Amino acid sequence: MAKNTVITISRQFGSGGRLIGKKLAEKLGIPFYDKELIELAVEESGFSKEVFEKVDERASSSLLYTLSVSPGLMHGVTGMADLPINDKVFLVQTKIIKDVAAKGGCVIVGRCADYILKEFHNVVNVFIRSNMQDRIDRCTNVYGIEMTNANKEIQRMDKKRANYYSFYAHSKWGVAENYDLCINSGRIGIDASVQVIADYVEYFEQARKENAAK
Amino acid sequence: MAKNTVITISRQFGSGGRLIGKKLAEKLGIPFYDKELIELAVEESGFSKEVFEKVDERASSSLLYTLSVSPGLMHGVTGMADLPINDKVFLVQTKIIKDVAAKGGCVIVGRCADYILKEFHNVVNVFIRSNMQDRIDRCTNVYGIEMTNANKEIQRMDKKRANYYSFYAHSKWGVAENYDLCINSGRIGIDASVQVIADYVEYFEQARKENAAK
Repeated sequence: MAKNTVITISRQFGSGGRLIGKKLAEKLGIPFYDKELIELAVEESGFSKEVFEKVDERASSSLLYTLSVSPGLMHGVTGMADLPINDKVFLVQTKIIKDVAAKGGCVIVGRCADYILKEFHNVVNVFIRSNMQDRIDRCTNVYGIEMTNANKEIQRMDKKRANYYSFYAHSKWGVAENYDLCINSGRIGIDASVQVIADYVEYFEQARKENAAK
Repeated sequence: MAKNTVITISRQFGSGGRLIGKKLAEKLGIPFYDKELIELAVEESGFSKEVFEKVDERASSSLLYTLSVSPGLMHGVTGMADLPINDKVFLVQTKIIKDVAAKGGCVIVGRCADYILKEFHNVVNVFIRSNMQDRIDRCTNVYGIEMTNANKEIQRMDKKRANYYSFYAHSKWGVAENYDLCINSGRIGIDASVQVIADYVEYFEQARKENAAK
């Protein structure tokens, strides 16, 4: 079973991408990082958890205040004193994502991890999408969002994620070119999506071994 | 084995998408349509094969001449006498793609089949991509394109396909939103890509059966 690959998961809001990532990590017996990255970043940076949660996966904006932080607090991340808070959080997360990826196979959700790890050779980048009705159903049944707000919330969250990706990864979110595997989860369900990714990763590891043996 | 699904394959030039489609059709024991659509369209329309090959998968252009064709020749496709030749060819192919899809499972490569069949419920839309080095290797080793021209030819062909899709499908080619499954074939190889699609289609048919039973 594939255990040496870092799998990044980008996901449309309401597509079940986070759950797919969690189940995939369980299936493969490897660590799963989503909000867990915030905990690690809080420890690493000296920022408060509230700061991280506020700016997590948000692009920098001139409207956002600049938090002055002593560079001494930022272990291993220097020269950030004058950056907007979002950029500081992005740099701290970049360091943490590279650190966890260097340790071995894991699943990382969101946060431009595909872009951050583009120099790593053991990475498979996945994008999860679904059709609008499935996403609305998930938002209302699982996330507890009111039916009347679901469509608007989906568009708001997708826009936020696309902006974040565009700002930090300098590329278009949701374009097949940026991923190894894009799956419409709504057509086959969560568990089958997990299996399709697990199989792709297995083939990927086989191909790497064969290439290494040449 | 999945036999009732129409699988459309869009593909970057040099990604092996056509070969993947052909092997998938053989594996599933269903018909394969790529250039075969031209033969059918020639029979259907009364246009010459040369006309079809010239404008196949090309967007309409004011520079292209309008061929005057007797509507009587266009069985089942009427009112086209004053359209540019590309649009006529697109309409003939649209009719043929709907006809072959209505007969049952098959694999159709290119020609906006995903857009043309969007009202069909038994369709899985696939996009095949690969990294540039793999595509250059395929162009030189398999298609016989000279190394010095490969990069340019890849960009020219991708642009042609993107324009064709944009013109007739009114949407962006290669955006995950338009497909059920996008695969980077270069990371896992041709045969593994065929297997990933076959498995997705199998899960898709299972999910359809389960939904129908509810």
